[in-house]
Amino acid sequence: MKGEVRVVTSNEHKFAELKDLSGHKVRLVRIDSPKLEIQADSLEEIVRYSAVTFFSLFRFPLIVEDSGLFIEALNGFPGPYTNYVKRTLDNEGILKLMNGIENRRAIFRSVIGYIDVERLELFKGEINGHIGDKAEGDKGFGFDPIFIPNGYNISFAQMDLKEKNLISHRSQAFREFLRFYEKI
Amino acid sequence: MKGEVRVVTSNEHKFAELKDLSGHKVRLVRIDSPKLEIQADSLEEIVRYSAVTFFSLFRFPLIVEDSGLFIEALNGFPGPYTNYVKRTLDNEGILKLMNGIENRRAIFRSVIGYIDVERLELFKGEINGHIGDKAEGDKGFGFDPIFIPNGYNISFAQMDLKEKNLISHRSQAFREFLRFYEKI
Repeated sequence: MKGEVRVVTSNEHKFAELKDLSGHKVRLVRIDSPKLEIQADSLEEIVRYSAVTFFSLFRFPLIVEDSGLFIEALNGFPGPYTNYVKRTLDNEGILKLMNGIENRRAIFRSVIGYIDVERLELFKGEINGHIGDKAEGDKGFGFDPIFIPNGYNISFAQMDLKEKNLISHRSQAFREFLRFYEKI
Repeated sequence: MKGEVRVVTSNEHKFAELKDLSGHKVRLVRIDSPKLEIQADSLEEIVRYSAVTFFSLFRFPLIVEDSGLFIEALNGFPGPYTNYVKRTLDNEGILKLMNGIENRRAIFRSVIGYIDVERLELFKGEINGHIGDKAEGDKGFGFDPIFIPNGYNISFAQMDLKEKNLISHRSQAFREFLRFYEKI
């Protein structure tokens, strides 16, 4: 096992979450991400493409992560376009779309891609929950204020980073990655 | 001026509109598009990237087109993600988001990119209008049923292809391209 993994991302919140999880097992280094995500409906496709593109650019082992909120009643919207939809419609837009809809089930999905000269491996995590009636909490980022994980009555944005990291989609994917990385 | 231009697109409706406009001036040939659009907030960026990518793949002169519906009150949503939003939220989702909003102004924008071994040129067209109260008409494609161009009281989807092509964003961009193409 090597001692350092570079994370290509422009999202400081994501990096902070991964950093918290990496503990002494691995040292994470953030590399600012060039804007190069493809438009695709699956996180896997996006992550695979980003990993290969960044690897051909940087030439060192790296991980990329992409995640999205998939709302069942909205046919998976906003899905892989979570970032753009957050910036335009924001939490209020999603709540308006969900107005009067009984099925509020939603899934937060995360895919982490690790690439080095010998391999490209994907690791996945997901957490089931529902869309709350209003935005609550100011921690986290993205759509955290409207996502309430199953078994909880508070949103992701009402949880400390440590608490969110116990259950989140991203932490699950990252732990999968760590298990793999310890062996190579 | 050469006699043939290849259009890289997987959208048959777009191709039909361009074909109708090309007349005897230029023969258009459709090349099915690999899925390779980047996620970016500007059509220009997407078109530039697609054009360069496809040119390095196909090695012949080609055009690509990207377009989007930008709704002022929704901070430009759905913008470059029009295709995905159509498939998930559809017209009804946009109408729900616009519920109770007085400012219904919207712009349809189109960017066409032409690339050959010597140049990459972008051509733009746009048309102002507003979001109707309901979806009307079954012609056209995408969000045509909810877009009413300024000076009209029918939607794009209630117009024949010829009528839409007189005023549409895409036809404006394509006519710009034709003027340029006749000279090279």
